[in-house]
Amino acid sequence: MDRRKFIKEGFLAGLGIVASGLGAKAAFGEVQDPKLPFPYVKLDPKEIADRAYAEYFKHECCDGVFRTIIDALKEKVGGPYLGIPSLMFWYGGGGIAGWGTVCGTFNAAAAIFNLTCKDFKPMIDTLFEWYQSTPLPTYQPPVCKPGLEKFPKSVSHSPLCHVSVQRWCEVASVFFGKPVLYNSKLRSERCARLTASVAAKTVELLNAYHFEGFKHQKIKGRQKTKMDCRVCHEVAMKELS
Amino acid sequence: MDRRKFIKEGFLAGLGIVASGLGAKAAFGEVQDPKLPFPYVKLDPKEIADRAYAEYFKHECCDGVFRTIIDALKEKVGGPYLGIPSLMFWYGGGGIAGWGTVCGTFNAAAAIFNLTCKDFKPMIDTLFEWYQSTPLPTYQPPVCKPGLEKFPKSVSHSPLCHVSVQRWCEVASVFFGKPVLYNSKLRSERCARLTASVAAKTVELLNAYHFEGFKHQKIKGRQKTKMDCRVCHEVAMKELS
Repeated sequence: MDRRKFIKEGFLAGLGIVASGLGAKAAFGEVQDPKLPFPYVKLDPKEIADRAYAEYFKHECCDGVFRTIIDALKEKVGGPYLGIPSLMFWYGGGGIAGWGTVCGTFNAAAAIFNLTCKDFKPMIDTLFEWYQSTPLPTYQPPVCKPGLEKFPKSVSHSPLCHVSVQRWCEVASVFFGKPVLYNSKLRSERCARLTASVAAKTVELLNAYHFEGFKHQKIKGRQKTKMDCRVCHEVAMKELS
Repeated sequence: MDRRKFIKEGFLAGLGIVASGLGAKAAFGEVQDPKLPFPYVKLDPKEIADRAYAEYFKHECCDGVFRTIIDALKEKVGGPYLGIPSLMFWYGGGGIAGWGTVCGTFNAAAAIFNLTCKDFKPMIDTLFEWYQSTPLPTYQPPVCKPGLEKFPKSVSHSPLCHVSVQRWCEVASVFFGKPVLYNSKLRSERCARLTASVAAKTVELLNAYHFEGFKHQKIKGRQKTKMDCRVCHEVAMKELS
């Protein structure tokens, strides 16, 4: 054992990297960079939705979509998925640590497409277009909280967290006849149902891509973005409703 | 071997999952979900910047930051990093597959913080605040393309790709005395240098967190976002310059 190796292993031991970690290194051998795409097996959108809904209340939206699908693939495929931490996308919650940028459910879904589809960009385009043009959330939990059997839906017209949340809050305030704020429990319930809706849609698209000859539409970019500029810039939001 | 296991292994064999993949599964044993955070060793910001700059021209901004840091940790730590595909964040380029949402360099850096820091949210806040208030890019490649030794910098005031790009294009158009568009080679050069700048800053913050007792500032949210609302909503952009 040369000096450098000795220092490195000593350091790892100091950090508590036990035999299992070093064993993984040895086992991978030359597979230091697992090649993409990983194999995909058909998943059940309904089952994924139920799991994603429950998961939301632990580590938010981005983890809800990512962990639910990754864990299902760990169970059904195993192999290359086992090296990926299920909690790897916790950071994406609330548009990345509460910054309100891209909706965490997207970020997670896009990462899953990257992992499992050679041609992942059209999958992302299809999901984003669906998200910003569909009244969401569509998902209804098996056991509803009292009074929430009927639940408001909104069209986001944007893949951004804060825009999507704000538009839903406006619709919900009218629906419930009282102000529904971004930091309310109702808004959490909405994001949990949205997490379930997006997780299910992601799996539907994956099933179509891998088993049903999925065809996609090409989305034409608008300047350096595929977002609709009008949502934030010189637009009467009502025109888009 | 029961029927279910037989079907699963047959399926994997059919997909070309060879011994190495199954070996990984066996090796991980009960470590089916690698626990976070992973160990971190000190990295050299300068070296990371040079590598990230070169990597940008292969798979864009998000991959440039993620792969560069992950590969350095694969080389220096190994262990749990080896199960993560280096190309896992290709999807984040251009604000996620060209959608112009969150800058890909952020998404990647945030993912690295999630992997390596128990308390990752303040790290994200610190990086984002630095990004949106600093004239960037600061990085200069060792061998400059002719005429690009002096290079324009801009302050983004936003973590969003299309906002950051557009503001730089405006500054660059004045600097070079001709229109510099979002789809120009100059803009690519800017994003490559930005990738290098953010990768270096990410590593500086990680070194500070793990080895120098990093202290962070708490960022107060503005509505359901930490972004500065004024950038898009009712603001004279010149006031922010």
